Amino acid sequence: MERPVTHSREDDFSLDGDTLHEECGVFGILGHSDASTLTALGLHALQHRGQEAAGIVSFDGRQFYTEKRMGLVGDHYTDPAVLAKLPGTMAIGHTRYSTTGEVALRNVQPLFAELEAGGIAVAHNGNFTNGLTLRRQIIATGAICQSTSDTEVVLHLIARSRHSSTTDRFIDAIRQMEGGYAMVALTRTKLIAARDPVGIRPLVMGELDGKPIFCSETCALDIIGAKYIRDVENGEVIICEVQPDGSITIEERKTARNVPERPCLFEYVYFARPDSVVSGRSVYKARKNAGINLAKEAPVQADVVVPVPDGGTPAAIGFAQQSGIPFELGIIRNHYVGRTFIEPTQQIRAFGVRLKHSANRAEIAGKRVVLIDDSIVRGTTSIKIIQMMRDAGATEVHIRVASPMIYFSDYYGIDTPDPDKLLANQYADINAMCRYIGADSLAFLSIDGLYEAVGGAKRNPQAPQFTDHYFTGEYPTHLTDLHGRTMSDPRQVSLLKEAG
Amino acid sequence: MERPVTHSREDDFSLDGDTLHEECGVFGILGHSDASTLTALGLHALQHRGQEAAGIVSFDGRQFYTEKRMGLVGDHYTDPAVLAKLPGTMAIGHTRYSTTGEVALRNVQPLFAELEAGGIAVAHNGNFTNGLTLRRQIIATGAICQSTSDTEVVLHLIARSRHSSTTDRFIDAIRQMEGGYAMVALTRTKLIAARDPVGIRPLVMGELDGKPIFCSETCALDIIGAKYIRDVENGEVIICEVQPDGSITIEERKTARNVPERPCLFEYVYFARPDSVVSGRSVYKARKNAGINLAKEAPVQADVVVPVPDGGTPAAIGFAQQSGIPFELGIIRNHYVGRTFIEPTQQIRAFGVRLKHSANRAEIAGKRVVLIDDSIVRGTTSIKIIQMMRDAGATEVHIRVASPMIYFSDYYGIDTPDPDKLLANQYADINAMCRYIGADSLAFLSIDGLYEAVGGAKRNPQAPQFTDHYFTGEYPTHLTDLHGRTMSDPRQVSLLKEAG
Amino acid sequence: MERPVTHSREDDFSLDGDTLHEECGVFGILGHSDASTLTALGLHALQHRGQEAAGIVSFDGRQFYTEKRMGLVGDHYTDPAVLAKLPGTMAIGHTRYSTTGEVALRNVQPLFAELEAGGIAVAHNGNFTNGLTLRRQIIATGAICQSTSDTEVVLHLIARSRHSSTTDRFIDAIRQMEGGYAMVALTRTKLIAARDPVGIRPLVMGELDGKPIFCSETCALDIIGAKYIRDVENGEVIICEVQPDGSITIEERKTARNVPERPCLFEYVYFARPDSVVSGRSVYKARKNAGINLAKEAPVQADVVVPVPDGGTPAAIGFAQQSGIPFELGIIRNHYVGRTFIEPTQQIRAFGVRLKHSANRAEIAGKRVVLIDDSIVRGTTSIKIIQMMRDAGATEVHIRVASPMIYFSDYYGIDTPDPDKLLANQYADINAMCRYIGADSLAFLSIDGLYEAVGGAKRNPQAPQFTDHYFTGEYPTHLTDLHGRTMSDPRQVSLLKEAG
Amino acid sequence: MERPVTHSREDDFSLDGDTLHEECGVFGILGHSDASTLTALGLHALQHRGQEAAGIVSFDGRQFYTEKRMGLVGDHYTDPAVLAKLPGTMAIGHTRYSTTGEVALRNVQPLFAELEAGGIAVAHNGNFTNGLTLRRQIIATGAICQSTSDTEVVLHLIARSRHSSTTDRFIDAIRQMEGGYAMVALTRTKLIAARDPVGIRPLVMGELDGKPIFCSETCALDIIGAKYIRDVENGEVIICEVQPDGSITIEERKTARNVPERPCLFEYVYFARPDSVVSGRSVYKARKNAGINLAKEAPVQADVVVPVPDGGTPAAIGFAQQSGIPFELGIIRNHYVGRTFIEPTQQIRAFGVRLKHSANRAEIAGKRVVLIDDSIVRGTTSIKIIQMMRDAGATEVHIRVASPMIYFSDYYGIDTPDPDKLLANQYADINAMCRYIGADSLAFLSIDGLYEAVGGAKRNPQAPQFTDHYFTGEYPTHLTDLHGRTMSDPRQVSLLKEAG
Repeated sequence: MERPVTHSREDDFSLDGDTLHEECGVFGILGHSDASTLTALGLHALQHRGQEAAGIVSFDGRQFYTEKRMGLVGDHYTDPAVLAKLPGTMAIGHTRYSTTGEVALRNVQPLFAELEAGGIAVAHNGNFTNGLTLRRQIIATGAICQSTSDTEVVLHLIARSRHSSTTDRFIDAIRQMEGGYAMVALTRTKLIAARDPVGIRPLVMGELDGKPIFCSETCALDIIGAKYIRDVENGEVIICEVQPDGSITIEERKTARNVPERPCLFEYVYFARPDSVVSGRSVYKARKNAGINLAKEAPVQADVVVPVPDGGTPAAIGFAQQSGIPFELGIIRNHYVGRTFIEPTQQIRAFGVRLKHSANRAEIAGKRVVLIDDSIVRGTTSIKIIQMMRDAGATEVHIRVASPMIYFSDYYGIDTPDPDKLLANQYADINAMCRYIGADSLAFLSIDGLYEAVGGAKRNPQAPQFTDHYFTGEYPTHLTDLHGRTMSDPRQVSLLKEAG
Repeated sequence: MERPVTHSREDDFSLDGDTLHEECGVFGILGHSDASTLTALGLHALQHRGQEAAGIVSFDGRQFYTEKRMGLVGDHYTDPAVLAKLPGTMAIGHTRYSTTGEVALRNVQPLFAELEAGGIAVAHNGNFTNGLTLRRQIIATGAICQSTSDTEVVLHLIARSRHSSTTDRFIDAIRQMEGGYAMVALTRTKLIAARDPVGIRPLVMGELDGKPIFCSETCALDIIGAKYIRDVENGEVIICEVQPDGSITIEERKTARNVPERPCLFEYVYFARPDSVVSGRSVYKARKNAGINLAKEAPVQADVVVPVPDGGTPAAIGFAQQSGIPFELGIIRNHYVGRTFIEPTQQIRAFGVRLKHSANRAEIAGKRVVLIDDSIVRGTTSIKIIQMMRDAGATEVHIRVASPMIYFSDYYGIDTPDPDKLLANQYADINAMCRYIGADSLAFLSIDGLYEAVGGAKRNPQAPQFTDHYFTGEYPTHLTDLHGRTMSDPRQVSLLKEAG
Repeated sequence: MERPVTHSREDDFSLDGDTLHEECGVFGILGHSDASTLTALGLHALQHRGQEAAGIVSFDGRQFYTEKRMGLVGDHYTDPAVLAKLPGTMAIGHTRYSTTGEVALRNVQPLFAELEAGGIAVAHNGNFTNGLTLRRQIIATGAICQSTSDTEVVLHLIARSRHSSTTDRFIDAIRQMEGGYAMVALTRTKLIAARDPVGIRPLVMGELDGKPIFCSETCALDIIGAKYIRDVENGEVIICEVQPDGSITIEERKTARNVPERPCLFEYVYFARPDSVVSGRSVYKARKNAGINLAKEAPVQADVVVPVPDGGTPAAIGFAQQSGIPFELGIIRNHYVGRTFIEPTQQIRAFGVRLKHSANRAEIAGKRVVLIDDSIVRGTTSIKIIQMMRDAGATEVHIRVASPMIYFSDYYGIDTPDPDKLLANQYADINAMCRYIGADSLAFLSIDGLYEAVGGAKRNPQAPQFTDHYFTGEYPTHLTDLHGRTMSDPRQVSLLKEAG
Repeated sequence: MERPVTHSREDDFSLDGDTLHEECGVFGILGHSDASTLTALGLHALQHRGQEAAGIVSFDGRQFYTEKRMGLVGDHYTDPAVLAKLPGTMAIGHTRYSTTGEVALRNVQPLFAELEAGGIAVAHNGNFTNGLTLRRQIIATGAICQSTSDTEVVLHLIARSRHSSTTDRFIDAIRQMEGGYAMVALTRTKLIAARDPVGIRPLVMGELDGKPIFCSETCALDIIGAKYIRDVENGEVIICEVQPDGSITIEERKTARNVPERPCLFEYVYFARPDSVVSGRSVYKARKNAGINLAKEAPVQADVVVPVPDGGTPAAIGFAQQSGIPFELGIIRNHYVGRTFIEPTQQIRAFGVRLKHSANRAEIAGKRVVLIDDSIVRGTTSIKIIQMMRDAGATEVHIRVASPMIYFSDYYGIDTPDPDKLLANQYADINAMCRYIGADSLAFLSIDGLYEAVGGAKRNPQAPQFTDHYFTGEYPTHLTDLHGRTMSDPRQVSLLKEAG
């Protein structure tokens, strides 16, 4: 089940081209008079998890309201005219980078359905590994699907559940889902949060003015001055409900028991914001530790430690502190890229220009440079950045990567290239990789080095503490769609293409 | 079942304010290499049937494509970039003026669903009088509805049908629908057209380069040089299918038999374009005949016959020819209204100015004027236009209306005000109406006069030849939603409000 | 001095393609609290004089404000946010169709200059026949020109005048200008209006709430309920000034004496709105009279009189009344053309479709048709409309034109094609023209027939009562630029091309 | 002569609020087939010098072309449709942050004038200290000014010069100008560059494919792979001319001799990009040196060195290296701010949220923090950032500023607040300032410390090596407008307000 890879339009002219993409951030709040404004702010803090589109659904006691827009949260959702269309004290929101399903407003979450018991809106981050199988079953029994989003499948399962309460229907539905997800849902009285049984995708609970909040990362609490309460546990469903007297009750349910949590390592390596705390661990510290361990595992004689901005900076700081080699900003980032440069003309591409980054020649010329990057996927960017260093006069260019080599696809919401496009699968050994990218030396952090950096202990092969299949091939869940080859029936997906 | 009335924003400053609105025009074509372009042109010719939004769905042998836009067809659908997103040799399109369901892109037709047998797209003009009842039943059995459009109900009925062929499923679905409709649908190989059992809404079949076309009015055939074949009969379903060898087969089915056709009189009075031929009768001639009959029924001593543009012009020509009173353009229309004037500021409203029409003083001053209008709904516009004539120096102002008084709501796709807002229901007799609007005399065409103008014979009270309930109260179908009070459950509709 | 002809983009798909274009309408008001709103409304009523761009300048006692926009007045100027940027009790405005000077916001009037005595804004309709000669002289003495508009020349002449008062400077400047113009200007205390010595272009004075107004046509007074006072005379300058006590003084000056007025015949034939009164004569009556005279001069046996909409309608009414042949709407106009259809794709063009007009087949088929048009320029549209009539089944198609043949270019603000593109110059006689356009017969109104229709008397060859050079070659002013070949120096004009 | 201060809209919610603004970057190229594309790229690299608007003028051998747009270079200038409107092998461009003159497209540079000898376009960075005086003189002698830009004055002086060659006219004009400027100009055959006599504003010369380039900073050469040749000297004019055979000649002229260069210190402290080399000195190294010197001058006991991003980062690296205290990213920047968040609603403001920055709590809590900033202007941001650190749990917060205290206004193109708004002028001593901003300690780099960091030697009081009046009050040129109080005549400036 290979999903189509969106070959990033930025590949050829940006150092950001060769990265993985996460698709989503979620936010929800119940009982607050500024519900939609706070949701907009929370989504803004989660913008790094998805920049293609954002949506908010609110409920004002009478009616649900929805706004969906392509583009950044800050492009639309602080316009008073837009916020005014989202009244009420309950809201959930979603920001996405599209993987499954083309980008279309129709697919932008939260999705909404009218049920017999009233409306429900759902937003989720992650991916179901049996989504296509379930979709096929549902359509076979007379349902119509109007989006290509997995989330619609959840709505159908809720609608078809034989349970009577919305909570039971919701739990019934997600029990049928397999994969990694963090989900928020809104009904006429409830805000519901759910996290997958393994705890692959992150989801935290906070509080503002006594009102409950759920969001993907703690940075979305910080932006609004909310207090962190705890992580939603793996396999947990939390149901917050407004009572007739205005008070809020909180019910905790479990969809899976006795399964140890295995958070996704890539949240620490790349996705989460450095100021977030994921499953109790500082993301910044994890990255800096990775740089420290990298300096121990793969030391190098050099004059200057240069981060590949911005992802490589914490590890570079750690590497420099451990190695004693000075940390310098050898690559400068241009923050004013603008709209059309995002899709530059062929003419501009042809100049091979670097619209987003440039070498700080004064710190590079005549020096032995250690470049610190957070990860290498296909290696295409590494080639360009090494060349940029050599053009600026570097005498040696060494690459140190603060995570292990990537060999396997992700099926839990991270957009990975075809495995045969991955650098680690294209070359026999690290020396061949090093020659291909043109470096003087190349080293990756070991899997144990990364485990120690994040969690303080080596990997337990019998019961790995984290989700790490992209490095190891050990998937934490079944992969029903993949093994059932559901995707081989071309009629069942992407039948409708809609422009945004 | 009173539908919410959209109080036209133009009420206070335009002579067009006091009119009825039809919601839709439809168009479909099969097997033509320019399918989406021809659909855009056809919808443009049908633009008078709905100006709020337009949508097109095409199929290219692999995939369905859809584009939906608020605004005029000519605002979007000749942009090559837009047409390029609609490849394929099969397409259907829809242009709408919203009545049921708020205006939202989500509600813009055609609607699309993935079925087990493949995708289907549906567009329709009209209204189902049991749509809410059916929607309620469907939701009660586990379906989710994502729009507030009646058309979605048709899609659900098709998906749930126990028949196996798409054609049988489609017929099964529309047999459950009650009301007035003209519908086109597109599957992976078929273009389907269907007209309600009574034939309330119009639908014609044409041909271009040997390829079948269905559209609401003949003017959509004329614009692309297509040939008129015949009207789709009341209660008929026509299925055109592309065969593997590229040939097209045509199958004719009946959902109702032995029911005489009763086309809607208002198509002749107001909605259809004057150059269209509806159910075999020239719309222009019908209107001119109405003016001739009006001059016979309600003659008046006057110096000049002035049409209320543009609807009253054909009747005014007939009235002038019959009466011998000269026809003159006493009211001039400004064609350049622009975007923001459509919603003028309070300051501009306050000037009471006429942004779209003005008196041609030289033809009015010192004269006895007969104004010819196509219809009077609430009378609000009549007041303004009579005042405009007096301000320009008319010595007498007589109103002659080329249709009978309107007493009843429509439930078949025409947006009518609350019955108690209708002029005919607010005043005891025609003299009181005449005083209210400020005219020197007022007369309406009789129902028999209109029947003769359109069909050549008086009304047959036992079996009326036309749909005429707005004048007579005799509805041609059941009104299940109205009598079942389905709308009284507030949770079941309009739960989600979405901005366009 | 041949101006570049803008080959209308509509040529190939609209009946409006073969027309002349006027470039401007002007409006000004002094001392009214709703100055900019009234100016917007006045410009809206003058929209038929130019649809490419509109601008307004206001003054609030401290500062001048300007807004310029491409597009219709109603697209921008009733947005409260736009009107709020134009505060003050004095304003002038301009709506333009571009001829001289490319279309660029830089060229959109009113133009403004800071003078030593304070700012001045100027808007004008018309064209200077010595504008390029003066521009050359000015640049030679150290001025810089930032637009390609003739109006900038007026500003330079005002700035350079040796007179001290602004009024004297203004009169000094326009005394140097030659050609046809109607001008309004705004200073910190004054509203000034000026009309060329021959009175080619129209300009009227009105009053609202005791405050003076100047505008191109009376229809701009009617829209705001203002009272018509009188025409600005040919060669007259009227200066309205706000006094410190708030009262308004009015001074009348003459730049030319004892020159009889010769208004432009084309205002009556084509440009002015039918409800306007130009130089005391109803435009609608003039056109209808032209139709009556045409029926007398060139009668024809036919079944139906069909106007070419909308310009030919009044003449067709006159022709029908005089001839006794019935007047019918044989051509239907689509009012919903939209934005992108204005520039249709090649694909749509290729269908040869008529996006704006269609034949009303029921009134044409089997009939002898007399088409009445207001004018024929190149004949390209006539070919298409005659073909459209034949396609709809007309047995004969006769063309009657309510103005004489056009042989000569205009230099006073009307955009005329190269003389050798004019139908009248391409064929030896009227029979050849008739064959070229494909009609069964063709006739034009005589020059005396037009003079009588407009002014009640035949043309006086010694002192023609109207400006009529396009028909006769007799220009009412010098043509300095043309004879001096100023335009032959390519460096002096159009050096800068700016996109709007 | 106090210029109106644009109170930054970001003051209340961003750490970037309390900064100075430079108004412009310039770029020009001659003889290259991709002239306008290269100009767009160069302006993109100079985007940090001005983000409000950008303009390009090109010449194709026949005609000049111009495009001006509000917003970022990358928002408009890689659209192929826009670049296609700028043909030719010669172009100049400009990116601006507005100070003098309201922001209006009319004021966006390059400005263009038709002269007798042909057209000329001019773009400049800087400000004339006698611009208003000259403008007044010019208007008094009959010129008209259409913008409020100083650059228009240069055009007038060129137009009025008694010299015959364009080069001589240009030099004649700039010899009359006083102040700080870096200018590029384009005629039909020449690209001209000029730098003010003192060399306040930067301007460098480069070469690509043998074709000359001028631009504000070397980073604009790097982005297109061009080679740095040399700085344009203070008081130098360089004229590059295309010869009829296609070769390019280069002429060097001097408008001032024997004046030592005094580049603006603030280019090193704040404005220039860290990877640029200004007057032969690496900006990054100068900033890092300032941090080193700051650690020597004002050491502090602390646990962590935290840069105020992004300006304070190089100095923080230097401070950390010198002091041995670890450098950590204690403040995280959100790069996805979007359009509407730039002007947040009152509701969002009220949350006191930080849309662009947040504390990295894990690195701050329980620590003694040294914040390193590049400069302090009013101190408003310092208050917020110190509070943010305390909220995140810092036990002590020390501020070290890598430049001296600012006491005086700039008149050479930097937008400074009223002197009495400057922190240094509001409090008696540094202890009072420290209390006001809420820090535990506060220290600024000394003027000698900054001179040494940038130039390697202490300040020479008799002949200062740099422009440093904002710190010292010693202005390097006359301030004619200021002392002549030209601005006191309210009629002479800003008479026309135009919306962009």
